[in-house]
Amino acid sequence: MRAFASDNYAGAHPEVLAAIAEANADHAVSYGADPWTARATELIRAHFGEHAQPWLVFNGTAANVLSLGALTRSWECVVTPETSHLHVDEAAAPERMAGVKLLTLPTPDGKLSPAQIEPLLARQGDEHAPQVRVISVANTTELGTVYAVDELRALADVAHANGLLLHIDGSRLANAAVALGSSLGDITTAIGADAVSFGLTKNGALGVEATIFLRDPAPEGFAWMRKQHAQLSSKMRFLSAQVVAMLEGDLWSRSASHANTMALLLAQRVAGIPGIRVTRPPQANALFATLPRELADAVRPDFPFYTWNEATSEVRWMCSWDTTEDDVHQFAAALERAAIAVPGAA
Amino acid sequence: MRAFASDNYAGAHPEVLAAIAEANADHAVSYGADPWTARATELIRAHFGEHAQPWLVFNGTAANVLSLGALTRSWECVVTPETSHLHVDEAAAPERMAGVKLLTLPTPDGKLSPAQIEPLLARQGDEHAPQVRVISVANTTELGTVYAVDELRALADVAHANGLLLHIDGSRLANAAVALGSSLGDITTAIGADAVSFGLTKNGALGVEATIFLRDPAPEGFAWMRKQHAQLSSKMRFLSAQVVAMLEGDLWSRSASHANTMALLLAQRVAGIPGIRVTRPPQANALFATLPRELADAVRPDFPFYTWNEATSEVRWMCSWDTTEDDVHQFAAALERAAIAVPGAA
Amino acid sequence: MRAFASDNYAGAHPEVLAAIAEANADHAVSYGADPWTARATELIRAHFGEHAQPWLVFNGTAANVLSLGALTRSWECVVTPETSHLHVDEAAAPERMAGVKLLTLPTPDGKLSPAQIEPLLARQGDEHAPQVRVISVANTTELGTVYAVDELRALADVAHANGLLLHIDGSRLANAAVALGSSLGDITTAIGADAVSFGLTKNGALGVEATIFLRDPAPEGFAWMRKQHAQLSSKMRFLSAQVVAMLEGDLWSRSASHANTMALLLAQRVAGIPGIRVTRPPQANALFATLPRELADAVRPDFPFYTWNEATSEVRWMCSWDTTEDDVHQFAAALERAAIAVPGAA
Amino acid sequence: MRAFASDNYAGAHPEVLAAIAEANADHAVSYGADPWTARATELIRAHFGEHAQPWLVFNGTAANVLSLGALTRSWECVVTPETSHLHVDEAAAPERMAGVKLLTLPTPDGKLSPAQIEPLLARQGDEHAPQVRVISVANTTELGTVYAVDELRALADVAHANGLLLHIDGSRLANAAVALGSSLGDITTAIGADAVSFGLTKNGALGVEATIFLRDPAPEGFAWMRKQHAQLSSKMRFLSAQVVAMLEGDLWSRSASHANTMALLLAQRVAGIPGIRVTRPPQANALFATLPRELADAVRPDFPFYTWNEATSEVRWMCSWDTTEDDVHQFAAALERAAIAVPGAA
Repeated sequence: MRAFASDNYAGAHPEVLAAIAEANADHAVSYGADPWTARATELIRAHFGEHAQPWLVFNGTAANVLSLGALTRSWECVVTPETSHLHVDEAAAPERMAGVKLLTLPTPDGKLSPAQIEPLLARQGDEHAPQVRVISVANTTELGTVYAVDELRALADVAHANGLLLHIDGSRLANAAVALGSSLGDITTAIGADAVSFGLTKNGALGVEATIFLRDPAPEGFAWMRKQHAQLSSKMRFLSAQVVAMLEGDLWSRSASHANTMALLLAQRVAGIPGIRVTRPPQANALFATLPRELADAVRPDFPFYTWNEATSEVRWMCSWDTTEDDVHQFAAALERAAIAVPGAA
Repeated sequence: MRAFASDNYAGAHPEVLAAIAEANADHAVSYGADPWTARATELIRAHFGEHAQPWLVFNGTAANVLSLGALTRSWECVVTPETSHLHVDEAAAPERMAGVKLLTLPTPDGKLSPAQIEPLLARQGDEHAPQVRVISVANTTELGTVYAVDELRALADVAHANGLLLHIDGSRLANAAVALGSSLGDITTAIGADAVSFGLTKNGALGVEATIFLRDPAPEGFAWMRKQHAQLSSKMRFLSAQVVAMLEGDLWSRSASHANTMALLLAQRVAGIPGIRVTRPPQANALFATLPRELADAVRPDFPFYTWNEATSEVRWMCSWDTTEDDVHQFAAALERAAIAVPGAA
Repeated sequence: MRAFASDNYAGAHPEVLAAIAEANADHAVSYGADPWTARATELIRAHFGEHAQPWLVFNGTAANVLSLGALTRSWECVVTPETSHLHVDEAAAPERMAGVKLLTLPTPDGKLSPAQIEPLLARQGDEHAPQVRVISVANTTELGTVYAVDELRALADVAHANGLLLHIDGSRLANAAVALGSSLGDITTAIGADAVSFGLTKNGALGVEATIFLRDPAPEGFAWMRKQHAQLSSKMRFLSAQVVAMLEGDLWSRSASHANTMALLLAQRVAGIPGIRVTRPPQANALFATLPRELADAVRPDFPFYTWNEATSEVRWMCSWDTTEDDVHQFAAALERAAIAVPGAA
Repeated sequence: MRAFASDNYAGAHPEVLAAIAEANADHAVSYGADPWTARATELIRAHFGEHAQPWLVFNGTAANVLSLGALTRSWECVVTPETSHLHVDEAAAPERMAGVKLLTLPTPDGKLSPAQIEPLLARQGDEHAPQVRVISVANTTELGTVYAVDELRALADVAHANGLLLHIDGSRLANAAVALGSSLGDITTAIGADAVSFGLTKNGALGVEATIFLRDPAPEGFAWMRKQHAQLSSKMRFLSAQVVAMLEGDLWSRSASHANTMALLLAQRVAGIPGIRVTRPPQANALFATLPRELADAVRPDFPFYTWNEATSEVRWMCSWDTTEDDVHQFAAALERAAIAVPGAA
């Protein structure tokens, strides 16, 4: 199967599998006191700064929800776009797993603006009102858009000026970094973020994500929080080896850069196809477009993808580290053929 | 490193890694709608019965806590031995992740007996009292003991006679099965258990466990429970491929049988060493013994292991699927040498 | 002090205190097995229908959150207006106490319309999406508006047609009923609501509210849910006696009717005052108006009230069972004097 | 009805009702910013010390669970006797409402001893083990025993020496104080306790308890914790007025002293009755005794009481602030008559 459905339809990068195989020798201390985890920690600090406190977990839900759980006390809540993955795609994990209330805000493009924050703060200190504590934004966003460095810094500034914290859902952080020509640290630590959920799985890992606290003091007791929410891996070396494979060289940027390039190529290739309208110029590895339902249905069996918005027939096409130029060409060709074949599609 | 510290110091079996590599081709639908997961489900049903409803999760904490969360309502609690992993080694995960209260009972050997249950039921129906709903026992137990088939059936019977459910923490289920000469189904589905947490990681997987509901009707909504507790893997095929590797042939029993045999061999080899007393004849892959602290300290740098009980200087030596006969001989030889060298150790 | 700040600034009605005193004789079985609780249950059934299952609790937060907790499973969420008390004034109690996620919707007047529900249901059955289960509306709403009987029935119908439930936050249910010329049952049980939080405190009780399940089957195990959330009163007879006092005669409607009448009177009295504009015609016991900040500040020391919306200088004036005509006249006179005295207020 | 079943079968003391009636005049700011609450705070500080931070709540479950929730972080647990109310009579409220794990210890008489604590601390710092943070003991205990001042100080000392906190469940604190000839502060603040749940309801209030933090710094954010667990009363003046009535004069000690005296009197009166054996000399307001089941059954219809232990036919007779000498004499006389009438009871 070749799909444009999600970057998690892709498998693991061969270099990641090789790193796992290499770590699979002899006995190693379990739960993280092993050399691979030490090396992963070093590498994360090299990318995210010396104060970075990384905690490896199994998936992005955990990275996000545990971050937010650790950054909030029971009466504190999290501001996030109403389109955020956290709100719409986590089956109420923030509320159920961490008891965290979300305050959601509308956005045109999935990106919060600093001006939206202060109106929420009128009741800070009021014992009846949920207290805002964290701003959580994804970069890359759910809508495939990317916050510029200045936009991130402005969010961090408005957070800190008001006693709040900034959390970045970095499920596709690498895609945002390469889109901006930035390092991973430039768009997290350097702009003043307090914590990031750094995603590696979609970018070519087998399955590992990191909750990283970026500033001192980091939340206390996170070791227990990770354990008691079933996110402490016994054979941790295999999670850590993946991180090493991604961060030791340029695999993280090579993979993300390739995925982004494929999305651009796809945008170019579909540009002239009758009936297809790119609704957002691709900034990272997602391409959003509208097209007639019949056209979508005609191509989907060979190249699966999801409809993002049933009402508007907007679809999301995701490219991944393993999407080939040939995939893109074949897919575009299939769209072209269907556009001609489907009566009235254009 | 060669260690007798824990069976999770071992890596992944080469056949498991090969299965992961084989699954790493092309795109696959994420979150479980893939052929490997379908095959894993078939195989689990072949072993655990056609009504088995398996849910793959990342680790044993999750398999246990989500099982118990699904089997109880908010006012219902779980009876378990006071030595159970659930109670002493999960950093309060049952209480914090699932809100489940544990009622703990003393045992001589880590094994509950049916006669201990009924005295706990005097206040069923009383709105002030936690209501007993689940009996949770591990097989193999934390003390390395194994419930016989009849003992399990008696627990299931006392559970069902009183409107309760039986959950088995099968972190080392395979070791128990081979110790008893039973199939996996014989000691779970066939004795009437309602759910099992089936562990594969310690037995040679890279990292995967299964919550399996064995009887109809299974709890509703478990798909969401797994998701909202961050246990739904996006690249599920890599968890499922491990299950397939373990269950398709005899890898599950071959690995467990080997580990058990190594524990027996170790028991024989240390039998005559001055100062060492085996405290429990090995039933599965653990060997418990007392030995002088100096003796333990002398050997530990080369062959790490944990002291189980500081007060009595009892240690636990675990064998795993990859413990070699040579490991056992070298370790026993080191103990022998130390027993002679350590003044007064004998 | 005479205030228009909130109906909970008022004390207890003398008939309520008398009922408590009368119940204060001799010993009574604790926790609800007493004659007053039996009588309160009878009376609630007389008002809300024979299937009504009432549970007395200490306050409205509890009545609402426990209702919603009982009506939802962990993956199910609640739709409510973005202005609802539940969302803005409960310090994240739904999320923290019951783990319930809220989906909030904008409204012009605090009232949900049935057409807003179906667009939320596109992802029912999707394991990533929170599942909508309950529609929760307040009647009287936070904005002082009242749902008509037909509006309520339409909400119940859209709920039931989609497998959802309707919960009514009846913190001021009596005010809504008398405003509509309805009985308590007409606007709850008769329109098909599944549960109501019936408030008595603001309407003249000392402190008691009821979670009432209106349709069979009611949620199981609520006795334990109430107990484990610290809402089971030991000296229950004193909660029940208040319910009896309110429901045995017409105290509930007499008090609510009086409060509503006082809000109308106030609206008439302030109508001509320069600078004051009634923003919503009073439907129950609240009056919303805008007035210059200086005018508000001049009167507030003598007659405390809250600003509802700092941005628009909108205030909320609440009348209660004990607001007198003289209170209204004095307050209006003070506003008139201030309107003249404050330079430029008009 | 005249009962020896529980001190919560008693009503409210007339002075308490009078205080409520007196507070029921005019409007008062809701949620605690009223003069009665200010006065109650002053009085609590007069009794418990100037650093005391009191928070009034509705019942003892709340006072205990919220105290413990505030004193622990998610990975921290509470040591308590296995007979504690917290463990056996709160329907899993600590685990469900606050996520708090309890570690229970056996005791001969309901009283923990300091020597039991240190063996629990071997795994402090271990990320797999629940971390002990609070010792929670009741004074008076569930078994009617009273900790001496020195015993309490020893518990506080062992707590503080190990970085732990001491919480006292003071549901019957007044009974303990008068039994010891101590003030309320002597057995809480002065011995070094960190927090106390101060019960007033059983001692003659209508219904109010206080969570009191005794030492600086008190937990942050408790205002929100109380609110979000539905324990913030809107008409707070009526809770506070009860506290004032109990603490302004000697009502707290007069009531408790009377109840204790009645228990002593009862012990004397039943001493010679054939078949009755007092199992614990009464230290506060409870009397435990064994008697033949037939004898108990014969008297119970006229004087209700509970069997404490079905296995041993041990019963618990509770005296309250309103138990009269005549009640005791009538009850003892009934027991005497039954002891003669019941064949073989002696």
